[in-house]
Amino acid sequence: MQSRPASLSECPCARTVETVCEWWSLLILRDAFRGLTRFDEFQASLGIAPNMLARRLKHLTQSGLFERRLYRERPKRYEYLLTAKGRDFFPVIAAMLAWGNRHLAPEGVSVLLAGRVSGQPLEPILVDAASATPITSDNVALIPGPRASEQMRRHIAAQRGLRPLSPSHIE
Amino acid sequence: MQSRPASLSECPCARTVETVCEWWSLLILRDAFRGLTRFDEFQASLGIAPNMLARRLKHLTQSGLFERRLYRERPKRYEYLLTAKGRDFFPVIAAMLAWGNRHLAPEGVSVLLAGRVSGQPLEPILVDAASATPITSDNVALIPGPRASEQMRRHIAAQRGLRPLSPSHIE
Repeated sequence: MQSRPASLSECPCARTVETVCEWWSLLILRDAFRGLTRFDEFQASLGIAPNMLARRLKHLTQSGLFERRLYRERPKRYEYLLTAKGRDFFPVIAAMLAWGNRHLAPEGVSVLLAGRVSGQPLEPILVDAASATPITSDNVALIPGPRASEQMRRHIAAQRGLRPLSPSHIE
Repeated sequence: MQSRPASLSECPCARTVETVCEWWSLLILRDAFRGLTRFDEFQASLGIAPNMLARRLKHLTQSGLFERRLYRERPKRYEYLLTAKGRDFFPVIAAMLAWGNRHLAPEGVSVLLAGRVSGQPLEPILVDAASATPITSDNVALIPGPRASEQMRRHIAAQRGLRPLSPSHIE
């Protein structure tokens, strides 16, 4: 059996996709941010088959995005609470919401993000924390991190997009 | 047949998930940002079955994230170029990359985003464009947009998470 290329096994984007990017998992996370915690609540919201929902909740719990807590002894019932790792996924969901509003709502917008205190609509953009420069595909590059394998370094050096302007930055 | 609840049909996050959130589609987009354009290039990078790749490229083209361009007449060969709508998806990919680096790289980081000119690593965070306030699940709320249906308004009003501090902001 072939070993997986570094572009799959080492890439943080591919790992994220493998961990949560399945239709139902993303919508379960969305609903968790909306405050749902119980099996029946997720099921009512999504209309998902029980065995499928059980599988996704188990996977998200094993992946550390949910923790399971007993809320009733007899019969035993659990609720699923977002962990710090799970809550930290919110920017991905919010970036999807913003893209969906911009590109998939030709009839007008049904849901908006707003400041919790101000109640005023927000426009989510991705920026660099230190410089506050907006991050777009035009102004950023991919570079190898400290733990990049030789294969990953070659992979990054060979790519045509997301390249640093000066090749010296590749090393 | 039951009609789909507003939490699926109207939600911009659910629409985005339906449009691109399938394992392969996200990795094809990732590779497109890295500069890949041709069928054979995507296939070599992902090791995906040709019929599956053809289906995903067709779907992403029909969804308006790629445009197809003839680059060879005989035999006819097409390349797939990101449209403005496709390029605008980059913040979602970058937010996934950042989350993956934070939570799924216990051995250390293999790939980093850097400034294209500076070559220095960036830390992507989601902020409100106007106020530059970081957007987290603690400080934002969901509110109905101008085109929210009655069902969506009730749905948002009933949720326990992502609520505005003052209920008057719901309307």
